[in-house]
Amino acid sequence: MSTRLQGEDRLLAWLRDHQHQSLIGDDAAVVPAGPYAVTVDSQIEGVHFVPGLDPSVLARRLLAVNLSDLAAMGAVPAYAFLALSTPPGFDHERFFLSLLAACRKHGLRLAGGDLARSPGGTVATLTLMGTKSAGGRWLRRGDAVPGHALWLGGTIGESAAGALLVGRGARLAGSRVELPRDGPAVAGDWGPLAGAARHAVRRHLLPEPQLELGAWLGTQAEGAAMDVSDGLARDLHRLCRESGTGAEIDRAALPLSDRFTALCARLGADALALALSGGEDYVLLFTLPDGVEPPAPFGCRRIGTIIRFPRRRRIVLFDGETSRDLPDAGWDHLLKRE
Amino acid sequence: MSTRLQGEDRLLAWLRDHQHQSLIGDDAAVVPAGPYAVTVDSQIEGVHFVPGLDPSVLARRLLAVNLSDLAAMGAVPAYAFLALSTPPGFDHERFFLSLLAACRKHGLRLAGGDLARSPGGTVATLTLMGTKSAGGRWLRRGDAVPGHALWLGGTIGESAAGALLVGRGARLAGSRVELPRDGPAVAGDWGPLAGAARHAVRRHLLPEPQLELGAWLGTQAEGAAMDVSDGLARDLHRLCRESGTGAEIDRAALPLSDRFTALCARLGADALALALSGGEDYVLLFTLPDGVEPPAPFGCRRIGTIIRFPRRRRIVLFDGETSRDLPDAGWDHLLKRE
Repeated sequence: MSTRLQGEDRLLAWLRDHQHQSLIGDDAAVVPAGPYAVTVDSQIEGVHFVPGLDPSVLARRLLAVNLSDLAAMGAVPAYAFLALSTPPGFDHERFFLSLLAACRKHGLRLAGGDLARSPGGTVATLTLMGTKSAGGRWLRRGDAVPGHALWLGGTIGESAAGALLVGRGARLAGSRVELPRDGPAVAGDWGPLAGAARHAVRRHLLPEPQLELGAWLGTQAEGAAMDVSDGLARDLHRLCRESGTGAEIDRAALPLSDRFTALCARLGADALALALSGGEDYVLLFTLPDGVEPPAPFGCRRIGTIIRFPRRRRIVLFDGETSRDLPDAGWDHLLKRE
Repeated sequence: MSTRLQGEDRLLAWLRDHQHQSLIGDDAAVVPAGPYAVTVDSQIEGVHFVPGLDPSVLARRLLAVNLSDLAAMGAVPAYAFLALSTPPGFDHERFFLSLLAACRKHGLRLAGGDLARSPGGTVATLTLMGTKSAGGRWLRRGDAVPGHALWLGGTIGESAAGALLVGRGARLAGSRVELPRDGPAVAGDWGPLAGAARHAVRRHLLPEPQLELGAWLGTQAEGAAMDVSDGLARDLHRLCRESGTGAEIDRAALPLSDRFTALCARLGADALALALSGGEDYVLLFTLPDGVEPPAPFGCRRIGTIIRFPRRRRIVLFDGETSRDLPDAGWDHLLKRE
């Protein structure tokens, strides 16, 4: 931490200088008339990110993960509130320069927060408030209807593969991904898989919230939406529970590319398991009436259909001639990885 | 943690059952038109509270500390968002039953949050949104004017004395304070100081946010306000900086009771130092035009006067015939205790 930012008051003064029309300074920030979508998420050292992660990467990841929740509501980012507890030596300037730049990019104002020291690792909690887009509606998990097509906003599983790589030493240096040279499970160089590996690391460390897709979905008359944070299997169960429906998904339609599958083989991981329950994908999972398709540039993929419930099996995975239950399994932060 | 609350989804379902008109379930909560005062504060194990603190006390303290910020804005509590990261074995049921009861008492709705496991100690971060009271105004730190009387909403220093006692083993068992039997600095029983000691512990662990006082101040045409969280000295410097003023305070007017002074002597602590920079008092510090007095039941004390600035000394402490600078010193969470 640079000396000029030492002390909470000096840091706050610096933050106020870095934002026009600062809301920082009172016991609470006053925000104008809403309504608002409000979300809160934490990034915890040793849980959500590896110890020693570059504070500028942490700041962008913290914001991206939270923005993904606003995207899932069809909301327009408006205000951010940060609670940051850090051990001695944390580089606040590096963290805040990165956070403020990312806030500006998304039209967000950092409006308040709380800074504290931490006896353990860094814990960063961000609260975001978003407004409803003009002429749009809030997206909900509970608005899926039998007959709706089920869509994914992008590929899944790559973030989990990226997490494996980060666990083995991959890192982001500036905007460049450095892959581990070798190790017990990944000897030699990466050859033709280097591109897929770098992409996976980037997907894990710097997810891209699908705000434009969320805004487009908000202009549609029908459909449910949420973001995939705990894995498709678990999050689809959540969407179906909220909607009182089931779902059928098609193994062949899941967006698993050949290079992702090859990367998983190299990592000794099951590509389908990572895709279904690896989590931290931060793409939108949504439904639309049959026949309505998102604009092609969003790169969405139809993966199945919403069906009626109750029945014995809530979510069915079709794989060629066979079908099986998709269990409600994934990353649960209160339990171990299942 | 009771088994029926194991797993994030089960815990969320339980929470939804415990609140009417739950906002929990989507990626973000939708709150109606504001404007709102928004504040965020954390309680970190080993920093803000002793390891092993009863989760029900932690929940009430977390809420009280945040409500104090809303009180300082003259706001009416409306919505709460919780980010809670806990080590294995944390009693979520005990925490949430206490939090929800305290929310109900203050008309707050727990509208969302994020639960995670923590590799270190417990970190609880609460975001509160408050509405403006009917016919009231937002209270600000920057609205002090030379000539205003300077007031405190209650006594100061007792929370810091309570922190010393908690550090020496005092605890809250249900609603009863258990004092340490003896120790290096506090041998024997407490005799006539037992009441003051119990009061100090309660002030520290369960501060009472001055929401009614804040609401009354919001009905006044003039005056600045904030809550004293980092000690009178530091927080008064903040209020004066925001207002572009100085202040004179009178040592004899500071609300230091005889029994508090005696308790400090017993604890080997300087009563005036605890009162000026101990912090975590969570009483309101505010200004009013000369001649306007808060209703007597609030128990406020006039401690000085707002004066013009710039001059050499921002804040002057008069002590009988002498006067001295009151330094901008207190508890700063980014530095050591000074």
